[in-house]
Amino acid sequence: MNRITMAHGSGGSATSELIHEIFENAFSNDILSQMEDAAVVEGEKKIAITTDSFVVTPLFFNGGDIGRLCICGTVNDLLSRGAVPKYITCGFIIEEGADTENLKKIADSMQKTALEAGITIVAGDTKVIEGSGGIYINTSGVGYVPEGTDISAQNASDGDAVIVTGNLGDHHAALLAARMDIDTDIESDNAPLNEIVDSLRDLHVHTLRDVTRGGLATVLKELAVSSNKTIVIEEDALPVDKRVRDFCGILGLDPLYMGNEGKMVVMVPDYLADEALQRIQGSSYGKDAAIIGRVIAPESADEAGTLYLRTNIGGMRSLSVLQGEGLPRIC
Amino acid sequence: MNRITMAHGSGGSATSELIHEIFENAFSNDILSQMEDAAVVEGEKKIAITTDSFVVTPLFFNGGDIGRLCICGTVNDLLSRGAVPKYITCGFIIEEGADTENLKKIADSMQKTALEAGITIVAGDTKVIEGSGGIYINTSGVGYVPEGTDISAQNASDGDAVIVTGNLGDHHAALLAARMDIDTDIESDNAPLNEIVDSLRDLHVHTLRDVTRGGLATVLKELAVSSNKTIVIEEDALPVDKRVRDFCGILGLDPLYMGNEGKMVVMVPDYLADEALQRIQGSSYGKDAAIIGRVIAPESADEAGTLYLRTNIGGMRSLSVLQGEGLPRIC
Repeated sequence: MNRITMAHGSGGSATSELIHEIFENAFSNDILSQMEDAAVVEGEKKIAITTDSFVVTPLFFNGGDIGRLCICGTVNDLLSRGAVPKYITCGFIIEEGADTENLKKIADSMQKTALEAGITIVAGDTKVIEGSGGIYINTSGVGYVPEGTDISAQNASDGDAVIVTGNLGDHHAALLAARMDIDTDIESDNAPLNEIVDSLRDLHVHTLRDVTRGGLATVLKELAVSSNKTIVIEEDALPVDKRVRDFCGILGLDPLYMGNEGKMVVMVPDYLADEALQRIQGSSYGKDAAIIGRVIAPESADEAGTLYLRTNIGGMRSLSVLQGEGLPRIC
Repeated sequence: MNRITMAHGSGGSATSELIHEIFENAFSNDILSQMEDAAVVEGEKKIAITTDSFVVTPLFFNGGDIGRLCICGTVNDLLSRGAVPKYITCGFIIEEGADTENLKKIADSMQKTALEAGITIVAGDTKVIEGSGGIYINTSGVGYVPEGTDISAQNASDGDAVIVTGNLGDHHAALLAARMDIDTDIESDNAPLNEIVDSLRDLHVHTLRDVTRGGLATVLKELAVSSNKTIVIEEDALPVDKRVRDFCGILGLDPLYMGNEGKMVVMVPDYLADEALQRIQGSSYGKDAAIIGRVIAPESADEAGTLYLRTNIGGMRSLSVLQGEGLPRIC
């Protein structure tokens, strides 16, 4: 079994063999090994549920791969509501011809990342389609929401500080470099952000949001709209790795619209901003965090839902969400 | 917006437009409309979690479509553990060039089926890949497991009656007919089986299993292995619609290995079999249910995990799981 064939999607003996040899070995746990139609697990009063599909190309890139990415993406979506990630499912859609060695590597990377993020892979599914060896993965996640937790896009409040947990655009730059065959040591930031979120649990965080497709500007514009606020960010304050800044300069890219896979926006009342920043910087994957702006009361109805960038030279530029294609298949 | 382009997968303005015009309109509910990274909902002490991806072709067929199918498949997987289906997520992977009218029809069909099955679509995701208009959908589901419920493949017990809730092979035959351009009134059986499972809740059901890819023989063989039992089914007792039987006769197909999408295997203690059968037959999608066999104690260690068919002429034939391809992309 070196290549995936249509038989691996039949639901019969070849499917069993695939599941047994690759997924069961990699994901081995008591719940999954029951091989039932659904996993039965402990629940909680409030749960968070999310889903994300991953179609990234290439499958392996500097700093990560689709396996690490698909766990991180779903874990970070759960964390964005303050949930404690608990269970994750994986649905593989595999094109005929896919290399089973790659599948094994991906499954191992998923399991390793799941262990890091404290989440258990409890259910899976495999389908095969015609094609040329592509691999697509859906991960859906369930987390517990601790009592008293209320973190939502709608909670952004006047005066909140806006923190970003690290450098912008790393994932986007790493992928683009791989596709353009540019030799670089820029690495994807794909990472599970449990430690950052756990460090903030007693700080009355208003809003958390994963910065992915569309980049920081798209995410902040959406948050401004959801909360009916104005958000102002400072160009000077935006953290960007020097290598990524140089890469963007050459290619004419704007880090504000470049995707990450291990960064969050955090909104907290101003008086807690320094404490929050310190805790984030002390957590895994948080050392480059920075306070980048403020949420303010809109001056008029027209100003509700707006996002402004105060540029290095003091101008104010209104930012919209990403227009057009961006970088296709970034996650 | 008549066709899907790569921009619809950017996470920017085109993605928002797609979500707003098609999915939000179709799925409209309070939880989904919050547009958060994860949905926060009520939980329970025990929950069931499952995932399934759908790559069926064609997208529309006699009696159903990928939208109805993807809700039913995941609902039935939850029901197979005795769970009450509550929440479902949908992850769309769409090929460039897909027709947005088709997407609208599919989304409407999903919502209609979700309402029928009493499940709420709480989260979604959309990705776009190169290709020629294909549409793939992952649905992951969460259900509550009522206290005292213990339904599992491992619970099949000596003497249990084996019931199948209706005719075999309808979905497979409808799809194959569509692909071969054969004009037929055979319809897919894709249906949510809540009413059947609800009717059995006080009857100490041991095992429930959705009959899908691989057909009844594959499912029963897997159940025999999981429970370490011998299962014997009677060819005479197998319910098959006359039109499907004729269709299979012409094409040389065996209904035992043909997929359904609205049928379950039910295992109950023998003394409850008639009562269970009556209740199933009185439920939606259950009128053709039949008692088709028995679980028996294996006569030797070699016999554990075996499945036998007693043929019309009294012979005993050992059945394995589906070998080879079956019908590709049946779900």
